[in-house]
Amino acid sequence: MNHADWVRKELRKLSESLGFRFTPVEEIEKRLIKVRTGMKRQEINCLIVIQKMNLYYLSGTTQDGLLVVPVEGKPLLLIKRELERAKVESPVQETVPLKSIREIPALIQSHIGRIPNSLGLELDVLPVKDYFNYQKFFPSTKFLDGSRILREVRKRKSSFEIDLMGKAGEIGKKVYLEARKILREGMTEIEFGGLLEAVAKRYGHEGLLRVRSLNYEAYTWHVLSGFTGGIVSQSDSPMGGLGLSPAFPVGASLKIMKAREPILVDFGTCYHGYQADETRMFSIGKMKQRFIDAYEACREIHNAVLEETRPGADCEAIFVKTLKLAEKLGYKESYLGPPGLQTRFVGHGIGLELNELPFIAQGQSYPLEEGMTFAVEPKIVFPGEGSAGIENTVVVTEKGCEILTPVSENIFQV
Amino acid sequence: MNHADWVRKELRKLSESLGFRFTPVEEIEKRLIKVRTGMKRQEINCLIVIQKMNLYYLSGTTQDGLLVVPVEGKPLLLIKRELERAKVESPVQETVPLKSIREIPALIQSHIGRIPNSLGLELDVLPVKDYFNYQKFFPSTKFLDGSRILREVRKRKSSFEIDLMGKAGEIGKKVYLEARKILREGMTEIEFGGLLEAVAKRYGHEGLLRVRSLNYEAYTWHVLSGFTGGIVSQSDSPMGGLGLSPAFPVGASLKIMKAREPILVDFGTCYHGYQADETRMFSIGKMKQRFIDAYEACREIHNAVLEETRPGADCEAIFVKTLKLAEKLGYKESYLGPPGLQTRFVGHGIGLELNELPFIAQGQSYPLEEGMTFAVEPKIVFPGEGSAGIENTVVVTEKGCEILTPVSENIFQV
Repeated sequence: MNHADWVRKELRKLSESLGFRFTPVEEIEKRLIKVRTGMKRQEINCLIVIQKMNLYYLSGTTQDGLLVVPVEGKPLLLIKRELERAKVESPVQETVPLKSIREIPALIQSHIGRIPNSLGLELDVLPVKDYFNYQKFFPSTKFLDGSRILREVRKRKSSFEIDLMGKAGEIGKKVYLEARKILREGMTEIEFGGLLEAVAKRYGHEGLLRVRSLNYEAYTWHVLSGFTGGIVSQSDSPMGGLGLSPAFPVGASLKIMKAREPILVDFGTCYHGYQADETRMFSIGKMKQRFIDAYEACREIHNAVLEETRPGADCEAIFVKTLKLAEKLGYKESYLGPPGLQTRFVGHGIGLELNELPFIAQGQSYPLEEGMTFAVEPKIVFPGEGSAGIENTVVVTEKGCEILTPVSENIFQV
Repeated sequence: MNHADWVRKELRKLSESLGFRFTPVEEIEKRLIKVRTGMKRQEINCLIVIQKMNLYYLSGTTQDGLLVVPVEGKPLLLIKRELERAKVESPVQETVPLKSIREIPALIQSHIGRIPNSLGLELDVLPVKDYFNYQKFFPSTKFLDGSRILREVRKRKSSFEIDLMGKAGEIGKKVYLEARKILREGMTEIEFGGLLEAVAKRYGHEGLLRVRSLNYEAYTWHVLSGFTGGIVSQSDSPMGGLGLSPAFPVGASLKIMKAREPILVDFGTCYHGYQADETRMFSIGKMKQRFIDAYEACREIHNAVLEETRPGADCEAIFVKTLKLAEKLGYKESYLGPPGLQTRFVGHGIGLELNELPFIAQGQSYPLEEGMTFAVEPKIVFPGEGSAGIENTVVVTEKGCEILTPVSENIFQV
């Protein structure tokens, strides 16, 4: 059969029968209105959206290509490889093939009638060599950074998005419940982590946690036991773990998990691109009292954050409050990392990427807004011994917040 | 215990006891000599190495930071977060903390005695906003693209690197052997893929396949059965599969695998950053004859590539030869994808990243060299029905090549 015919005839139906949810056209239209408000403010005539999660957000597809958003008129989707599939996935109506990026100026000109005076690009992630190409192709156009516009628009989630994040949270719940049947003495951290991932995938977890950064690689298998929980590494988190090699020195290792050790499982899940992040504690036999106490302190800090969470609350003020509470509870030197390596955040925005706005952190003084989603993760670290922590993903509601990762917060003892 | 003391005293020993292999100083020194030859050719006074795999290649660590390589004299490692761990992992002797990237000019000046006239940066991946910062911090310095130097040096692997790739291949072998015990009728593609990953992780697979690109995300769970094997997607590969959603429309899906369908498993493994990539075919009961025939054709094309593989052989000529052989075997319209979407490569260089030099591809006319490593993957695609293919990772030896993924090439029938 001809491939394009098959895709047009069968793919949408088959995809939906296998769980696909496509972004509705109304959702895209609402997002475009907000993006255009930002474009007008920055005097951007036309925005070129390349980065995969921004492309998905504004077009509903992640096929290889880019979206041209003129400040007025219809957006134009340019697809390099699988045009027919992009048409099935995206509600954007104007969709054309892109053979070479050299064609972009002519395609834009034919779509909007002129070469734009100013073009917005995602300068936070776009590689320099691509930027030089755009400068060459558009010699008389002014280039502006359009990345903040999308960052701002994406920070408040719609009910469509919150529902997908809730689905990710439900997958996480299944993982943590099955984890109790999987964990046994003598297993390595990575064996446990790998089996948890297999459970998550079975329920539709997409296997990766995207993060907006050149070098930061997120991963789900953050299983740390005993001393590995006290090790700091490349990531900006209270503890990184040992990992498997100097090439991936974070997360689960080949260390065997032992009885009474604190076993911290920080396991993110991803459904239709949307993430939920959560942490729970496990132990084989009764966990050492020191870590039970530290975990209870983390729960108290976590609950204090949730009590403060509502529209209008200041992100930095919430963070500072947790510092004071940690000190009062006796964990000043171990809260969020060992002395000298303590991180300066207790929460990070989450959605299509792990490092979205807002940050519940030092230097982040701005109000929470309804529809924002973030993960709150107080952690306590004892070098050479281990760590304890809890994490939930929440959405800011009209009067407070709602947890999207509804798993029991008791220590899972096997 | 003080964290830094603990790291200095315990971490190397513990890491080695849990399988870590650190890059020897001699290895780094040899690589630096080659990099400096490239720097001299491009008149780069000083190279700043930021991207994680380049940093690992030249420093032995992937801690958060960057390496400064002056064209003469010692390199300087700047570490943002975990300096003590970087010192444990890296043979680079001059290692200092980096509080802010604003400090880079002063640190370079104090290390080499002056601000360099020309700085090399990895312009193939460096985000524009970072580039603008470097321009601001070094107002009278000329910036050049240093990315090709590292790309060229990295294309020929040392015996240390080939050994690590062989270890990745051994993990892959264990995965394929255990896969026969795992596969059963009624399982979904993603359940099977997730369990294969769990096996790989248990043996030390690092869970990710790095690729040098803004948007291309590699993954191990490329399990395609029946019609999903006939679907093309975002990736530049003969078939992408259905995937789990429009946000990740590649690889394994929630489709249930059925008897007699061709089940293609393209599973890459990663050990100490080094990858091995391979593909084998599975079936539940006897595979439909059409796909057995197609698989035999892929094997014939694969063997023809290996016969040609030796130092001096032209990469494009090998590719063109496979086109002719595919045509002769009756697969002109289905080799490497459906008509209109056929890819133009049958092999890709592999090492720390999935898209290294060389490419056995159209337009890539240059000779193979001893020590190059690539994956050869002829595949045949029938839209709406499925696909067949084989893949091995090989290293070019003095007189031919050696396979690093030594698993039986028979169809795995359960």
